[in-house]
Order: sequence, then C-alpha cells, then structure tokens
Amino acid sequence: MTYAIDALPDTHVAALQRAIDSKTKPRGALGRLETLALQIGRIQGTLTPALNRPHLLVFAADHGAARAGISAYPQDVTWQMVENFLAGGAAINVFARQMKLALRIVDAGVAHDFGPREGLIAAKIAPGTANYLKAPAMSAAQRDKALATGRQLAHRLADGGCNAVGFGEMGIGNTAAASLLTHCLTDAPLARVVGRGTGLDDAGLDRKQTLLGTALARGGRPADALSALAEYGGFEIAMMAGAMLGAAEKRMLLVIDGFIVTAALLVAHALAPAVTDYCVFAHRSQEGGHSHQLTHLNAAPLLDLDLRLGEGTGAALAWPLIQAAVGFLNDMASFDAAGVSER
Amino acid sequence: MTYAIDALPDTHVAALQRAIDSKTKPRGALGRLETLALQIGRIQGTLTPALNRPHLLVFAADHGAARAGISAYPQDVTWQMVENFLAGGAAINVFARQMKLALRIVDAGVAHDFGPREGLIAAKIAPGTANYLKAPAMSAAQRDKALATGRQLAHRLADGGCNAVGFGEMGIGNTAAASLLTHCLTDAPLARVVGRGTGLDDAGLDRKQTLLGTALARGGRPADALSALAEYGGFEIAMMAGAMLGAAEKRMLLVIDGFIVTAALLVAHALAPAVTDYCVFAHRSQEGGHSHQLTHLNAAPLLDLDLRLGEGTGAALAWPLIQAAVGFLNDMASFDAAGVSER
Repeated sequence: MTYAIDALPDTHVAALQRAIDSKTKPRGALGRLETLALQIGRIQGTLTPALNRPHLLVFAADHGAARAGISAYPQDVTWQMVENFLAGGAAINVFARQMKLALRIVDAGVAHDFGPREGLIAAKIAPGTANYLKAPAMSAAQRDKALATGRQLAHRLADGGCNAVGFGEMGIGNTAAASLLTHCLTDAPLARVVGRGTGLDDAGLDRKQTLLGTALARGGRPADALSALAEYGGFEIAMMAGAMLGAAEKRMLLVIDGFIVTAALLVAHALAPAVTDYCVFAHRSQEGGHSHQLTHLNAAPLLDLDLRLGEGTGAALAWPLIQAAVGFLNDMASFDAAGVSER
Repeated sequence: MTYAIDALPDTHVAALQRAIDSKTKPRGALGRLETLALQIGRIQGTLTPALNRPHLLVFAADHGAARAGISAYPQDVTWQMVENFLAGGAAINVFARQMKLALRIVDAGVAHDFGPREGLIAAKIAPGTANYLKAPAMSAAQRDKALATGRQLAHRLADGGCNAVGFGEMGIGNTAAASLLTHCLTDAPLARVVGRGTGLDDAGLDRKQTLLGTALARGGRPADALSALAEYGGFEIAMMAGAMLGAAEKRMLLVIDGFIVTAALLVAHALAPAVTDYCVFAHRSQEGGHSHQLTHLNAAPLLDLDLRLGEGTGAALAWPLIQAAVGFLNDMASFDAAGVSER
C-alpha cells in the first residue's frame, strides 16, 4: 500500500506571510496563531482558508493484554464508555458540543456487541486483539484491513465536504500498546515511555513495566512500523493510522490529541512522513511518553493543561485556537483598510 | 477607599471535589480544567456554576511619555486602533465575535475626540497622561477618579447580570508604564521587566531602557501602589485596576490578559490581595516581564502561545477553556449514572 500524500508546496508561503503581516497588529504579535494560519493556508492552497464540517472521530477497541493487569480499570470500561459516548455523557461529548464538532464513535474492535446505533460507525475488525504477552496482537490481514478501513472512512468524510478532523480514542490498555509502539518506532528506552495511564499507583506502574518487558522479550523490537503495529498495536490505533493517512491524502487538517493518538501518528509517519505537514498538535499530555513522541516528530503542541484523559478531549479543546487562526487571517482589517499608521 | 473583597471561603471545596471526582474520567485526568472548575464553583458558591453575559472590556488611553520615543509606533495609533475596534476590524473583534463575548471599548483617556459612538464607553479622565519623564503621569485626583470610574463600570456590568469579565487594553507606550509599575510593585530590577513591546529593535530597546531609567531618577521607586500608579501609570491601567476591584467585589470571574493587564492587577492586588482569588490567568505573554509578574502573583496561566498583542486577545482565546471547565462540571455523567465501572 502506498499513500499519495504531498509535502506542502511553498507556493503560497510568501503571499500568506504578506497577508498575515498586513493585518492591524505588530508583526508576529499573534505568535503561534500566525504559524497556524500559515500552515492551514498552505494545506488548503489559499489565502482565505475555511474549516468545513469539522469532525471528531473517537476510535475504540479492546486489547487482549488488558486482562493481564496493565490498566487501573477493568476491560469492560471500554464498552461502558462507548455507551457513555453514545448517550452523550462523557467529557468528549461535552467538549464536542461546545466546539460544534460532529462526533462519531468508531467501533474498531470493542469486545461487545452494540448493534446498529446512532452515532456509532461499526467497523469491528475483531472483538479485541490477541494478548501480545503470548502472541502477536493481530494478524497482518487484520492490520491491513484496519488501515484500509480507516483510510476509507477519512475519504468518505472528505467526500462529504469535511476538511478538518480531530482524532481521539478509547480502549482500556491502550497506553500500554502506545508505549510499546513508541519504544519500537523512536529511540526511547521503554522505561521513558511507560506511564501511569488512567492512574496506576507505583505498584501498578512496576507491574506494567514488567509485563511490557515480557512482551518485548517475546515479540522483539521491530523497527518497521507495520510489523510493530501487528505485534503490539490495537485495532483503534491501526484504524486511526489509516484514517490519518487517508485524511492527509485528501489534504484535510488533522488535529492530533495525546499519547495514544500520537502513537498512531508514529505509525502513519513511518509509512508516509509528509503526513505531519497536515497535523496540528493539540496538547501535551501529562503521560510522559507523549513528550518523547512530540520531540521525535519535531512537534510543538498548542496546549499544555496536564490532561491525561484521551477521547480526543485535547483535540476538541484546541479547536477554538484553530478557528481563531483562520478567523484573524480572513476577518482582520489591514493597516491600509483601517487607516492605522504602520511603524 | 476600601474594597469589600472576600477571600474565597472553603465552604464548597469538598462537595465540588466530590462532584468533579464522580465524573466518568480518571481522577485528575482533566488537569487544569479541574482546578478551574473548582475555582469557579467556589467563586459562585455553587456546584453548578454558570457563565452569564460575559464581557470583554478594552481600556484605551494615551501616555504623555509616548512622544519621547518609548514605542515602535506613533501615538496616533491609539485612537486609530480604537476606531478599528469600533469598526470591528481588530484581532480582539474577531476573537470576541468567535467566543461570543460582548466587547466594550472604554475611552479612559485617549488624546482624541470620538464623540458618542456605539460600543464606546466615554470615560475620559484627560486626553492622555502627563509625560512621566518630567512630572507625575497623573494627579492623585485623576487617579482616584479613574479607579472609581472603573469600579462603577464593573458594578454596572454586574447589575446587568454579567458574572465574568475579561480585561484588555490599548495605549501606545503602555508597556513602558507597565514596566515601571512592575519594577515598583515587585522585586524585579528594571532591566528584567522592560521588553520590546510592539516590536522595538535593539536600539529602540536600549533607548526605552535609558528613558525609563531617567523617569525613575525623577520620580523614584514608590513601593505603595497608589503613589506608583500616579507617578507612572496610565488612565487605562488605573481604570482597569478599579474595574478589577469592583468586579471582585461583585464576585465576578476576572479573566486576565497579558503584561499591561497584569500590571493593573499588581495595583489592584496591592490594594486588596484577595482580588486574585477571582482571577483566571489567560496566557503567558512573550513580553518577558509578564513571567515575572505571574511569579510574583503565584499565577499559572492557561495558554502559552507567544502572544504579544494585548487588546485582551489572550483573554478571549482562553475563554473556551473556561467554558469547558464549567461545561464538564455541569454536563458530564457520573460513574453511577452512566453505569461505568470505577477502578
């Protein structure tokens, strides 16, 4: 599989910078919003970008290793939280409503039968991955199907007129999978990228470290992304990686959440490095491994609010800043038009 | 003048913390939003806070010292930018519209006759301060009138049902005034709190440093806030300080912008220390002196986006985070209600 993702051309850079500098403010005074406006203008190839039908996709799946005790919560919380999403009661529901983001929950592989449900995209690869302590988490065929399904999903969104998509996830045990992927795909020692997840105590963290060491002793440290994904990944992570690649193919803006979403991006980036040109990094998670991922991707997130919830909550919270960047570029007066003296 | 500002009582702390911890998320996983929700609940004395009729006030005034060359921009830019605000073309207009904040421009002392105008609150103390290089910026009577006018203005907002107010400013030369006030009211050496403002080059920064040294040689370093305010302040700074105190008296939520707004807060804090209990610090400005002010006030801002524009733009950009804090507290399901297992 190859992905048709163009690195951003320099075509509009000079004109965009002139437009930004003509606005009634000192040059550079809007800081990060100015670089954001430039990026979005380049992605859309225009001096007047627009954010159309923005979506937030929450990919959910279960992890076979979760039953071994790598999480503070029981595995059933995955499907229970999906029910909570569908009922509108989770944090991401509150924030998506506030930000007017269309929220869709993607069942990439939850160990539960939801039946057909409003707001749920049924795309289950299997009811949870295999336990990577004993065998690869998924087969190559399952991995490829997850990637392809995610890609199609993004293409369908683009065909419907959406040009910006935020990524979120739910899956008990998925910080552990993200740690293993980050260890494989960056130069980080395992201990640097294993954290407390949803709230392990010291003993729980020790146990998680030990279990992940066991997994690595079994499956090794594959440096190629597709092998690492099959060995340790989750279906939500694989499908997200596919959706990221599909979204970048369609020149959409990708809003990246925290540690698990960025693990999926590590996979996507290994398959098509230009994908990060289309990414806005929403926030820096309290989960320590996230900073290591961000450094690896040379990424500077917009927010740093000590969040460690997932669900795409950081992506949703950063959304108004993205709107503000597009807003000032489109709607601020120039020095000329406003009759304001320049320096 | 004394201000009737109560330190926040502990009455609701335990119940608020229980409400926050009952939500379907790991404890503490919403990071800074959780402390924000706790603060707002305490300010309003309720488990179900609400943000009513939020306003953003931009205080504008001119500075006599501006003609001596302490700014990169000519003094006329103050009234030109006020015209830009009234026409809706400035950054703060774009952001206030996006965030649905009611924007009011307060003419606290601009050297220009605007006449009666929609959206402009006419409260001119005088057409600009005196030049503090040669004499105190304002008389004690002018200072007291500015403080009282600001206080009344906040009380009128509260009487109209507003319980949250963001602060912004416009005034060519006002980073210099803010530097002098910060030097007087904190332990910061002058050089630590003088910056490039709207964009001085190295020579301009040297000149600004020298001029402010001259001002201090004339007026000294008064450590009491009222004397420092009269010696070096601006009418927009004095009126903002009064409005902050008036807003805290009415138990409103105060959203603090950057370096100049925080200089006004230093004055307000010296007059009534409990005022900061009601403050949310919106962002960390690129103007270096702001970090020194924040440390002095033991404040941690929400955003760090390299902004240095003023106008209240940082306060407006932080507003959705404040809404999100109130939103999750009111609208998220509890573990019980959602049928989600706890740890």
